[in-house]
Amino acid sequence: MDKFGMYAKFTAKPGVRDQLVGILLEAAAGAESDPGCELYVVNVSETEPDTVWVTEVWSNAEAHEASLQDDTTRAMIQRAMPLNAGVESIPIRPVGGKGIK
Amino acid sequence: MDKFGMYAKFTAKPGVRDQLVGILLEAAAGAESDPGCELYVVNVSETEPDTVWVTEVWSNAEAHEASLQDDTTRAMIQRAMPLNAGVESIPIRPVGGKGIK
Repeated sequence: MDKFGMYAKFTAKPGVRDQLVGILLEAAAGAESDPGCELYVVNVSETEPDTVWVTEVWSNAEAHEASLQDDTTRAMIQRAMPLNAGVESIPIRPVGGKGIK
Repeated sequence: MDKFGMYAKFTAKPGVRDQLVGILLEAAAGAESDPGCELYVVNVSETEPDTVWVTEVWSNAEAHEASLQDDTTRAMIQRAMPLNAGVESIPIRPVGGKGIK
């Protein structure tokens, strides 16, 4: 089955980028125990001061969907929401390489 | 030292995307033995038929720079070049998460 991936772009409201990064790192820590999550890497933009990018790779779309139903994930999203001015994502299909299964 | 990362976007000339993917997967296989390379994941866009995205994470900028001096990498770039209509990249600084050190 195809893997599922995205580059999720979060634009933080002014001054709260690092707070948002903290929440996303908590989400990443939670993903450590999810075998369906292969990558959840939190990055800051080198060019846009309020931008945070998350690189996500999941075993398949169902694994990602299931994670969104998780109570801890939902609580995390609720906390992150007020810090965001905007969220968009680039949908990608991981085909191989170093760092994924 | 800060990690170094990017989302590299390759726009293949019409009809040769999969050939380009093949070369990038060879590059990824070469990166397996490079301890400075933490991630080199090859993805195709789900929305743009000629677009290939590579997710790169390196231990630091020097590790990335050194890889570009490598003869095998240079030969791979030479082979990929004629297949590309354009290359751009989104520079990011990985701060943590699942799948990197």
